[in-house]
Amino acid sequence: MAAKSNGQVSKVLDGPINPMVTPLLTDLYQFTMAYAYWKAGKHNERAVFDLYFRKNPFGGETKSISSENRCLLRVRMDSLIILEELTVLMLKFMLCKRDQLFSRRFPLLRVEGPIAVVQLLETPFLNLINYASLVATNAARHRFVAGESKMLLEFGLRRAQGPDGGIGASRYCYMGGFHATSNVAAGKLFGIPLRGTHSHAFVSSFMSPDEIIDKSLHSSDKRSTCEDFVSLAQTWLNKIQWSNSLNDTYDVMRSGIPNFCAVALALNDLGYKAAGIRLDSGDLAYLSSEARKIFCIIEKEFGVPGFGKMVITASNDLNEETLDALNKQGHEVDAFGIGTYVVTCYAQAALGCVFKLVEINNQPRIKLSEDVTKVSIPCKKRSYRLYGKEGYPLVDIMTGENEPPPKVGERILCRHPFNESKRAPRWSNRRSATIKDIRERCISQLAKMRPEPHEETKLNPTPYKVSVSAKLYDFIHSYGSMRHPWGCSESL
Amino acid sequence: MAAKSNGQVSKVLDGPINPMVTPLLTDLYQFTMAYAYWKAGKHNERAVFDLYFRKNPFGGETKSISSENRCLLRVRMDSLIILEELTVLMLKFMLCKRDQLFSRRFPLLRVEGPIAVVQLLETPFLNLINYASLVATNAARHRFVAGESKMLLEFGLRRAQGPDGGIGASRYCYMGGFHATSNVAAGKLFGIPLRGTHSHAFVSSFMSPDEIIDKSLHSSDKRSTCEDFVSLAQTWLNKIQWSNSLNDTYDVMRSGIPNFCAVALALNDLGYKAAGIRLDSGDLAYLSSEARKIFCIIEKEFGVPGFGKMVITASNDLNEETLDALNKQGHEVDAFGIGTYVVTCYAQAALGCVFKLVEINNQPRIKLSEDVTKVSIPCKKRSYRLYGKEGYPLVDIMTGENEPPPKVGERILCRHPFNESKRAPRWSNRRSATIKDIRERCISQLAKMRPEPHEETKLNPTPYKVSVSAKLYDFIHSYGSMRHPWGCSESL
Repeated sequence: MAAKSNGQVSKVLDGPINPMVTPLLTDLYQFTMAYAYWKAGKHNERAVFDLYFRKNPFGGETKSISSENRCLLRVRMDSLIILEELTVLMLKFMLCKRDQLFSRRFPLLRVEGPIAVVQLLETPFLNLINYASLVATNAARHRFVAGESKMLLEFGLRRAQGPDGGIGASRYCYMGGFHATSNVAAGKLFGIPLRGTHSHAFVSSFMSPDEIIDKSLHSSDKRSTCEDFVSLAQTWLNKIQWSNSLNDTYDVMRSGIPNFCAVALALNDLGYKAAGIRLDSGDLAYLSSEARKIFCIIEKEFGVPGFGKMVITASNDLNEETLDALNKQGHEVDAFGIGTYVVTCYAQAALGCVFKLVEINNQPRIKLSEDVTKVSIPCKKRSYRLYGKEGYPLVDIMTGENEPPPKVGERILCRHPFNESKRAPRWSNRRSATIKDIRERCISQLAKMRPEPHEETKLNPTPYKVSVSAKLYDFIHSYGSMRHPWGCSESL
Repeated sequence: MAAKSNGQVSKVLDGPINPMVTPLLTDLYQFTMAYAYWKAGKHNERAVFDLYFRKNPFGGETKSISSENRCLLRVRMDSLIILEELTVLMLKFMLCKRDQLFSRRFPLLRVEGPIAVVQLLETPFLNLINYASLVATNAARHRFVAGESKMLLEFGLRRAQGPDGGIGASRYCYMGGFHATSNVAAGKLFGIPLRGTHSHAFVSSFMSPDEIIDKSLHSSDKRSTCEDFVSLAQTWLNKIQWSNSLNDTYDVMRSGIPNFCAVALALNDLGYKAAGIRLDSGDLAYLSSEARKIFCIIEKEFGVPGFGKMVITASNDLNEETLDALNKQGHEVDAFGIGTYVVTCYAQAALGCVFKLVEINNQPRIKLSEDVTKVSIPCKKRSYRLYGKEGYPLVDIMTGENEPPPKVGERILCRHPFNESKRAPRWSNRRSATIKDIRERCISQLAKMRPEPHEETKLNPTPYKVSVSAKLYDFIHSYGSMRHPWGCSESL
């Protein structure tokens, strides 16, 4: 929020990227409560809220998040003054280290300020962070399964949850490690590389090559002109169809591949390089392998260097499971176009981040519940990630705000055995980064995690340990055992 | 599109409600293809595309759709002129009867115009219609399970897929039969009634009633003032706790309900009526029944007419299944707050509408595929819904554009046995309606369907028949047996 400690906002903030993000993008009950705080004379009481999730998404054990400062920061401060009686005093935002991998129960965001104001921010924060984090996580998981050498293209706009569901998804997929999107609006807004192919309608709009009126094509160096490029391609098609080496692949040869090869070879004659093919149905493992064989035979038979490395893109309702199945079967796909499953987060359509009061007027607050996962951790806290000697994170630990930080090489009591602390990321206010920086940090954070085969990750992920310091543990247990004085642990 | 038959757009259109809906909200390949159509001199060829879905969502047999004219119509015509060489000529939009229940394979929308322009519109149409239809359908299904007498409140903003995922969801839930939303932005934009309660944070921000500084409250008629309303409520709390009739309900009495009753009774003394309670965790069936008992005992014991009818709202990750389970257990809930599951369409996060070329220059086009569900139905078509004598729809039928419409009382050959045609909704251009009109039509359309118990609908829905006329059937079969002349049935 770029708020200085003296309570002045350090610069005028731009408006949100999405104009639908207005001060009214909140739940009615936030206004009801802000009004009630004011009626009770409590609206300026200093409150601390933590934003965190209780359960890892997609059954995973770690989670990538685009904490999306830009998005968050662009909630305009001045427009928060909704009720005449409310003035925005100091709001202190403690964003966790940006683009960090988060573990459950660890605050992604801590917001401190007058209770009425912070209360109003609950819904927009949750709305903006939940979806962003979920999609970035989902994208990172798809990238992990596809493998680092594969190109991942996000093709989800048409199946996304509305315009913003589409534009947001493109942005967060890129942050999570995708390489490009088909979404032109997202490309323009965020500078994400654009990629695309063509649809069936384009092919079927032509009845015959005779429909092409201007058949001429300049060579790539502009020095010569082929007057009838269509005939050139047809000549190549005949050569391919009469080739003995290609007879074995009769089935695939009946499909669009020979047409593509003929055009690619004709283009090659004029100094151009064809971009590649997309397989959008059928047995993608088999078809990609057959296509690769054909490309390699053509490279050899017609002496076209590099033709065997033609890019093969595959699409058709791909997701983590189908990518994994393709890997097991063996395939020759270079790039995957992924739509519905990545943008809608089909496997888990929502992340359940919550925003809980942990302190008011320096007094701790806890949410009690019979369901232990719903009990909140009170107090202002600090978070650390402890690394083992091998360089992999071993455990995350929360301490009280005023406890001394863990020291490298010094033992620290967690709920788990001692570990050596190598590096301890701390709360920090940072300035905004480019979308590329975010993407790279996300990828490098993931690379730091101890590698595990996908199968294990999916079925029986090694639990990543989250813990609290001995002091905080004692406090929670003594404080949590007291009931709220009004005897009400559930909201009415 | 309010386009006149002479090709003039009849009025200047407003911009889209969502400013993220721009001409760039489309896939890159649409521009690639529009450019290629132009290069081939084909960009002005007259094309007809159908927008439809192949498979009913949520495993259901009928589907409610908010065809969302306002949304569609607000794609600005003038901004479609992206490429200098493209001029927007006549676009003819044939929207199916608005807010109709659609069956699979029947076009929701038919778009006719220069192929390059219509191609560019594929992605925005799919993006805008897919999510709108899915959420409206999901909302209607929840309403069906909850029962007509129950109030349905949409509380999903915080878990929605971004700002537009939230605002859109509130709008389409209302259209699908919900009664209100917590989303203030949606309330302001679309006039949807707003509802809300309060959160746990509000309760836990108070340590004791002593924190309330101004304890006085005017009576509702302003004639008198209670100087210490807190004491009045505490007096009532004592009375409740000493009541013999309420002893049986000890467990529930330890929760927030006695506090609520005390305040409600104190408010009643001053001429106010308490709004009700919200149960947000625990066994909602049991707690609501116990709460109802307490309210009824209080009505009787303290002589407060109507207290027994106090509104009980329930929330906590509700969905179709949990609503159904509550109904089976028996409950006393009057209103349900539903969030995540309705706005993200958790049970099926995307609707797979497609947009297929069915005619170009008056020549039919078909998409062939080994998967028969992917084969498109060629030609310009008309759609009819045939009703039986009892007033329920029996079958939907598509005919060729120029076939005579089915007549009431006259037999017509479908893929199914003869039926009497009672009424035949036809393609029509209509003017836009208010969100309330849309909601009411959606509810009344659903009411016309033959009633089925939820269990059956869920597990083994009676198939709703979709068919084509004998003439169209013959045409498809003769035409479909021809392969595309280029021998390419899959897109590359």
